[in-house]
Amino acid sequence: MKHALPVTRAQDFAAWYQAVISEADLAEESGVRGCMVIRPWGYGIWERIQKLLDAEIKRTGHENCYFPLFIPLSYFAKEAEHVDGFAKEMAVVTHHRLKAEGGSLVPDPDSKLEEPLVVRPTSEMIIGAAFSRWIQSWRDLPILTNQWANVVRWEMRTRMFLRTAEFLWQEGHTAHASAEEAREETLRMLEVYRSLAENCLALPVIAGEKPENERFPGAVATYSIEAMMQDGKALQAGTSHFLGTNFAVAQNIRFQNSQGEQELANTTSWGVTTRLIGGVVMVHGDDDGLRVPPVIAPHQVIVVPMLRDQPEDEEILAYCKQIVSALSQLSVFGEPVRALLDKKAIKAANKRWSWVKKGAPVIIEVGGRDLAAGNVSVLRRDRLYNEAGKLDSAIVVKEKFIGGAAVMLEEIQQSLHDQAQAFLQANINRDITDIAGLTSYFEADSKCGWAEVQWSKPTGAALDQVVETLKGMKLTLRNVPLDAAAADGACLFTGKPAVERVLVGRAY
Amino acid sequence: MKHALPVTRAQDFAAWYQAVISEADLAEESGVRGCMVIRPWGYGIWERIQKLLDAEIKRTGHENCYFPLFIPLSYFAKEAEHVDGFAKEMAVVTHHRLKAEGGSLVPDPDSKLEEPLVVRPTSEMIIGAAFSRWIQSWRDLPILTNQWANVVRWEMRTRMFLRTAEFLWQEGHTAHASAEEAREETLRMLEVYRSLAENCLALPVIAGEKPENERFPGAVATYSIEAMMQDGKALQAGTSHFLGTNFAVAQNIRFQNSQGEQELANTTSWGVTTRLIGGVVMVHGDDDGLRVPPVIAPHQVIVVPMLRDQPEDEEILAYCKQIVSALSQLSVFGEPVRALLDKKAIKAANKRWSWVKKGAPVIIEVGGRDLAAGNVSVLRRDRLYNEAGKLDSAIVVKEKFIGGAAVMLEEIQQSLHDQAQAFLQANINRDITDIAGLTSYFEADSKCGWAEVQWSKPTGAALDQVVETLKGMKLTLRNVPLDAAAADGACLFTGKPAVERVLVGRAY
Repeated sequence: MKHALPVTRAQDFAAWYQAVISEADLAEESGVRGCMVIRPWGYGIWERIQKLLDAEIKRTGHENCYFPLFIPLSYFAKEAEHVDGFAKEMAVVTHHRLKAEGGSLVPDPDSKLEEPLVVRPTSEMIIGAAFSRWIQSWRDLPILTNQWANVVRWEMRTRMFLRTAEFLWQEGHTAHASAEEAREETLRMLEVYRSLAENCLALPVIAGEKPENERFPGAVATYSIEAMMQDGKALQAGTSHFLGTNFAVAQNIRFQNSQGEQELANTTSWGVTTRLIGGVVMVHGDDDGLRVPPVIAPHQVIVVPMLRDQPEDEEILAYCKQIVSALSQLSVFGEPVRALLDKKAIKAANKRWSWVKKGAPVIIEVGGRDLAAGNVSVLRRDRLYNEAGKLDSAIVVKEKFIGGAAVMLEEIQQSLHDQAQAFLQANINRDITDIAGLTSYFEADSKCGWAEVQWSKPTGAALDQVVETLKGMKLTLRNVPLDAAAADGACLFTGKPAVERVLVGRAY
Repeated sequence: MKHALPVTRAQDFAAWYQAVISEADLAEESGVRGCMVIRPWGYGIWERIQKLLDAEIKRTGHENCYFPLFIPLSYFAKEAEHVDGFAKEMAVVTHHRLKAEGGSLVPDPDSKLEEPLVVRPTSEMIIGAAFSRWIQSWRDLPILTNQWANVVRWEMRTRMFLRTAEFLWQEGHTAHASAEEAREETLRMLEVYRSLAENCLALPVIAGEKPENERFPGAVATYSIEAMMQDGKALQAGTSHFLGTNFAVAQNIRFQNSQGEQELANTTSWGVTTRLIGGVVMVHGDDDGLRVPPVIAPHQVIVVPMLRDQPEDEEILAYCKQIVSALSQLSVFGEPVRALLDKKAIKAANKRWSWVKKGAPVIIEVGGRDLAAGNVSVLRRDRLYNEAGKLDSAIVVKEKFIGGAAVMLEEIQQSLHDQAQAFLQANINRDITDIAGLTSYFEADSKCGWAEVQWSKPTGAALDQVVETLKGMKLTLRNVPLDAAAADGACLFTGKPAVERVLVGRAY
C-alpha cells in the first residue's frame, strides 16, 4: 500500500504532523517568528468550528463584544498571581511611529510611549475593567460576554496550531452575583466544549478538573477537556475557569445586592483556540493525510470531472454540476450538504490525491464511462483501501449515490468518532497502583496513552513533590475526570487514603 | 416633542453622534488610547455586516485565510511609496518579555527584538510575501483571498467607529495574470460594496474613482464608495484598489505564463471596516437615537412584556413567548425574522426607550389590557411620532401584526433607504462652474452637502494647486462618480476643457 505522505505516523509522528499540515494546505510558516499563515482549507475548518460554537455560546445566553488588542502595562500590576503566570511571554509595544535612518526604518525615539502596551495574551484584565464600569446593581448581573479574537503569547518553541505566538480563539468572560452561579457557568461551558469536541470534531475527550498546579493564573478552579492523540499524548483542547472573586478584587467589580449591600462579583472565563485543528489532525489523520469529520469539513463532497480535452468534456461538466446542485438541496446535520465542483486545470488523479490529503469526506470522480452509464465513482475518505490494500473506489448509480449521500456523511462522522473513542478507551490504564508500575507502563511503550490513578489530592509542597516525580518521567497531571469512579484504595504517590482519581500522561 | 437624547443633531452634530454611540450601547471608550470597546448591540450590527458581506465575498470566488498580526520592519522597506503613506502611524513591538523593577513592570531589556515588528496597518506586505510563495505558474492564478482581522493605525485624533487606533475590517487581496482581469476584480468588489451599502445598510452611496492625490499608497487606481452624512459631510465607506504590478515588483510575485515566460502578477486589494457602523449612525440616526435598518439589526422585533408583579404576569409572559416563537417562524430578506423577548428586570417604559435609542426596527409592548383583548402595541422606529408629535403606538390584533410583520420590516428598510437617498440627491449641487460659486455654496450653509463639478483632471503640480485651493475651504476631492454625466464645459479649477466630473465636499 503506497501512501500519499512522505512520512508515516509510525516512522516519525512529529514529522508526519508537519507533513499533514503542509500537504493538506492547512497552514504554513509565515516568515514571522512563531506566526503561521492559516490557508483556506485550515481556515475553512476554523470557520466551521466558529459557526457551530458561536451558535452554542449564543444559545446559552452570551453576547459577543470586542475589546482592545492592547492592554496598558499598569493593568497587569493589579492581579499579582495572574502576572506571574504570563509575565514572561508578552509582546510589548513601545513606540508608535517609524522613521527612516541610514536607508532603513527604525522606531522613532520621539514616539516612545509613556506607558508601554502589551498585546493581549488573554483579556481578563481589560474585560474586568469594563465589567467594573458596567456593573452597579444585582440587576446588571449576570453579564455574559464572549469575544472572538487573536492573542499573542511569546512562545519560545512553537509548533503549528498547537503552540504559536499568535493564535485565534474565543474567550468567554462572565460575572455573577454568587459563587454558586459562577461555578455552574464554568461547568456549563465545559460541557459546551465537551459536546463540541465529541459531536462536531468527533474528538472523544475527558472532561475534568485540573489539579492546583495546573490552574490558570489567578483561578480558583480550572476545568479542561483532554483529548488523546494517536501518539498517546494528551492535548488540552479547551479550558473553563472559575475565578471566584480574585479578579473582582483586583479590578473592583462590585455590585449592590438586593439588600443594598456592596458585594464582589464572581467571575469566570473559558476559551478554545485554533489548537483544536491540531487535535483534529493528530486524532483523525492517517498516512494519506488528514481526515476531516464531515460536520466541520469546509466541503463535504468533492466532485471531480475527469476531463481530457475531448468534446464530451462539456457533457461531463454539466453532469457534475447537476450532481453538485442535487447534493446542495440535501440536508445533513441540520444544514445543507456542502458540495464542491473542482474545475481547476490540473490532472484529475492529482486532484484526487490533493483531496485525499486534505481529508475531504467523500470524493466523487466522473469520467466518460461514468457519464455514459449514469454512474459516479465514489471514494470514502474514512475507508480508502479495501482488504486487498487497493483504493476502494466504488462505481455507483448516480441517483443511488445522491439518495444515500446524507447517510454516508453521517456514517463517516460516526466512524471517525468511534475509531477515536476505541483508541482512547484502549489506552487508559486504570490498574496501576504504585510508582514502579507507572514507570514500567510509560517506559514499556512510548505511545501507551494515559494512566488513571488514585491519589490523595495532595496540595502545596506535597503536590510539588508529585509533580517533580512525574516530571522525571516527562509526565504531567492532566485532570481529575468528572465521571471517574470513586476512589477506593491508597494514593499512588503518598500512600494515604485516596480521595479521587487523576489522569497522568505526556502532553503537548 | 421630547426626545430621548440629551442633545439634538441641530444643536451639535458631533456631540449628538457621541450621544447615540453611548445611549445605543454601541461602543465606549476603553481606557486604552484610541481603542474602543464594541458593546453587544454595536458588535451585533458588525456580525450582521460580516455575515452578509462574507457570503458575497465567497459567492464571488474568494476564500478566507488568516495572516500574521506582526510584520517585520524590513518588509516595509520594499515598497517605498507604500511606506511613506503609512510610516507615520504604526504600533511597533520592540520587546517580548516584561520584568518587575521597583514594584512595577517594565519591558525586559534582555528581550529586545533583533528586528522590531509592526502591528499590521494593512496586510499587502505580508500577504504579498505569501503570494510570492504560492504562485509559480499561470495555472495558480487568479488567487482570490480575504481575511477578517484587526488592524492598527496610530491616529492622533480618534473618533469612535470613524477613526480609531485599532479597528476591525476585512481585507481582500488578489493576484491575476493580466491587468485587465485585476481591474475587473477591483470594480467587481467595488460593486459588492456598493450593493452591501445600499441594499443591506440602506446607505445610498456614490461609487467612483479617487483622484491621484487620494490614492492608496502604492496603488495605480483607487475606487471608493462615498456616503453623505446628515451634516452634509462625506464618509468614505469602502475602497477597492488596483495595484498594477507595483506590489508584485516589490515582493517578487511572478508567474510563468502559458508561453513559458516569466511575468509579474497584477494585484488588487479592497476593504471595509467597522467605520460603516459610524456611517449607519450618521445617516439613519435621529434625535431619539439610532435607527438600524432591519437587514442589519441584531434583533428586528423586540417584545416587551409590561409586568407589574401581578398574578397575570405569567400569562403575559406566555403570550409574549408565543409571539416571539410565531415571528421566528417567519422569513424576511431570505432569513428567519429575528425576534427577542426582553425579560430584564427593569421598568417597561425604560425598556421601550432603551430600544428606541438602540434603534430596534419594531418594538412590541404587551400589557394586561392587550392580553385580554388579544392585541399588541406596536411602535415602528422609522416613524415614532404621529402628526400631533405624540408617540405613534398602534394597538393591533396580535395575528394581524404577526401576519404583517415581514412586510413591515421590508417597509422600514425601504423607508430608511428612501429618506437617505432623497437627502443625498437634494444635497449634491451640479450647477457650480467657478471658484466663487463653490466658495459661496459652501460658505452659505455648513451642512450643504457636496458639489459635483467639471474638471480637466489635472495631475502633478496642477493637481496640488487644486488640492491646496480646496484645503483653504476645508474641502477635499471625493471621487469621480462612475455614473456621472459626460463633461461638456470648462474645468472649474483650470479653465481648460473639462474631461470628467468630480465630487467635492467636506469629509470625515
